[in-house]
Amino acid sequence: MTFDGLWDELAPVGRDAGSGGYRRFAWTRTDGELREWFTGEARRRSLDVMSDRGGNLWAWLGDPDADGPGLVVGSHLDSVPDGGAFDGPLGVVSAFAALDALRESGWRPSRPLAIAAFSDEEGARFGVACAGSRIITGALDADRARSLADVDGTTMAEAMAAAGHDPARVGRDDEALRRVGTFVELHIEQGKGLVDGDAAVGVASAIWPHGRWRLDLRGRADHAGTTRLADRSDPMLDLAAAIAKARAAAAEHDALATIGKLAVHPNGVNAIPSAVTAWLDARGPVEADVRKVVAAVGAAAGVTPAEESWTSATAFDAELRDRLARVLAGADGKPAPVLPTGAGHDAGILSAAGIPTAMLFVRNPTGVSHAPDEHAEPADCHHGVRALAQVLENLA
Amino acid sequence: MTFDGLWDELAPVGRDAGSGGYRRFAWTRTDGELREWFTGEARRRSLDVMSDRGGNLWAWLGDPDADGPGLVVGSHLDSVPDGGAFDGPLGVVSAFAALDALRESGWRPSRPLAIAAFSDEEGARFGVACAGSRIITGALDADRARSLADVDGTTMAEAMAAAGHDPARVGRDDEALRRVGTFVELHIEQGKGLVDGDAAVGVASAIWPHGRWRLDLRGRADHAGTTRLADRSDPMLDLAAAIAKARAAAAEHDALATIGKLAVHPNGVNAIPSAVTAWLDARGPVEADVRKVVAAVGAAAGVTPAEESWTSATAFDAELRDRLARVLAGADGKPAPVLPTGAGHDAGILSAAGIPTAMLFVRNPTGVSHAPDEHAEPADCHHGVRALAQVLENLA
Repeated sequence: MTFDGLWDELAPVGRDAGSGGYRRFAWTRTDGELREWFTGEARRRSLDVMSDRGGNLWAWLGDPDADGPGLVVGSHLDSVPDGGAFDGPLGVVSAFAALDALRESGWRPSRPLAIAAFSDEEGARFGVACAGSRIITGALDADRARSLADVDGTTMAEAMAAAGHDPARVGRDDEALRRVGTFVELHIEQGKGLVDGDAAVGVASAIWPHGRWRLDLRGRADHAGTTRLADRSDPMLDLAAAIAKARAAAAEHDALATIGKLAVHPNGVNAIPSAVTAWLDARGPVEADVRKVVAAVGAAAGVTPAEESWTSATAFDAELRDRLARVLAGADGKPAPVLPTGAGHDAGILSAAGIPTAMLFVRNPTGVSHAPDEHAEPADCHHGVRALAQVLENLA
Repeated sequence: MTFDGLWDELAPVGRDAGSGGYRRFAWTRTDGELREWFTGEARRRSLDVMSDRGGNLWAWLGDPDADGPGLVVGSHLDSVPDGGAFDGPLGVVSAFAALDALRESGWRPSRPLAIAAFSDEEGARFGVACAGSRIITGALDADRARSLADVDGTTMAEAMAAAGHDPARVGRDDEALRRVGTFVELHIEQGKGLVDGDAAVGVASAIWPHGRWRLDLRGRADHAGTTRLADRSDPMLDLAAAIAKARAAAAEHDALATIGKLAVHPNGVNAIPSAVTAWLDARGPVEADVRKVVAAVGAAAGVTPAEESWTSATAFDAELRDRLARVLAGADGKPAPVLPTGAGHDAGILSAAGIPTAMLFVRNPTGVSHAPDEHAEPADCHHGVRALAQVLENLA
């Protein structure tokens, strides 16, 4: 099937009619529909679908257990709340389309090949990004993964069980990883690094160090209409200090810091809150600077930030990176552009686990991502499919 | 039945096992249980239960349509999120207990008498406090009331219909108001005005002017990990400015201002929000000062606050206030203490509509209200019942 046909099939799943964005959260009914779609597309192509101990899906052509580690391409299908259509699905849909194009031309791979869809990459429901790849590499402890809870108090273990994935299986999965000789993830660019050049596709150099922290701000519930200012313990004031400091410290230390998620308790118009929980996302080119930002925000709010996830700087495999940049050279022979990113990806987790890994970025004309109007031009998406096909041809 | 017996009956309804506080929101299943309890207690005492066009409940002894306007005592049964047991129910339970005590002594009222339970006093679900009394006095427009929506998007009209109250009936209800000759609301004090004296019960002088405003802070959804600080439009920064200014302006103008409720969209850890909605509660002894605080908060956040409700200063009926203070005089002949409050009440709405109205406050040892540990000593509650019985005897 063509890229456009596959893309249209997937477009309605998990789309919010109000915002026009996507709400594709891990281990929900919508997630189940995405998994069914993936499995159906794989079976239609006679690929063998396996689910690993993190719930990630692998659709194999050939037998990596018998014939040695294979080449894996893919990405993820879940989204942030009201996310765009491209972040994740573009890599999976492009992988199917690239395989179809190559097979139609009579090509047969010289080594086992898989298309992967990783679980819960965004961490939108349980708060830990790249949960699926972190579980199988051991970067996320199995017991901690099982006990992560969503805003309604449902644990990941409960959500997995409800979706038919045995939570007792959760854990490091060396067998699944041993099958992966090389991993290449194609992804929409989440920034404007490719906008000014003449290339629709670039190659990733590195992922900035990045992490998430939880600030538990405590106060005392009281009546907003009768409690004197002097008698108040209002955690909203600490929140205000944290938000202002996050921006100031990020500017000072040449990093990024964002408070994008809050939970207020009891969240009543005339009740001074007893507690506010704020989540801080911080990243930047230099780890020490990111750490300074987090410490400054904690100090401003009067708490020690609780680290929910942390990923050190990831430099992708240099040899693979340079090879792909050459494979994707333009008509003038100039290698494809090479650029870093502030966004974490499953490719970064696998790279940190020692697997030769690369990423391709498809041009994003506005740079907008994690929002309903995230967009890539169809011509650039088709260019991405051709690039991925060239990579498959070159590496398998 | 005794006060304690009635109190124990009501205690489990809508109690949250986690916080120990109450979640009794208008037109929910829990609200239905409270209404059933009220109706059952009224029928057991051979009172005629009527529901008015705002969904408020009235249990009449005698016929106010035939025998002229009556004396009404009561309060409300709903709560803020994780509210205390006393705010509201104390006035309703005390009314039943006071009537029982008087009837046991052989007393019969000389005029019609009712116990009232007002709908949706806290406005916890739909954002407008005293919604039931505002609807019947016309202070809240019927169409606006019907279209108010809760956080899930359910409108008040839909919620009423689901609870069996025809939303087409909603509106000003002169017939219901004509029956009310005098209204007396007993309520737990929400402050510490009675703590230092030797009286368990006081009489209200006035309610501060108070209101609620909505701040709609807009930004642009973007990826937290890839969008440069300079390219961001992040409404969280406006929220931080609003919170800080609310406290500073309240201190400057001798008023109270609180931001206790927020809605963040999309509320994802790694998404710069596209919108933050914050609700501002502001009150104080002087209306002009309250208005200055609201304007200052709006200016700090770069928006014009949308007024969701406003209640001017309410001075209760002076003659009734002084009469009750004398009726409740201590053994030494000293009148009961008279004190103002920053909290709004249905009594204030009825008073503003021209009905002679008074309030009694029962001592609150910590001043805490709108929180699970809101408390009044049993002896003070019993004192409140006796005070209400004295008022009934004196006025009916």
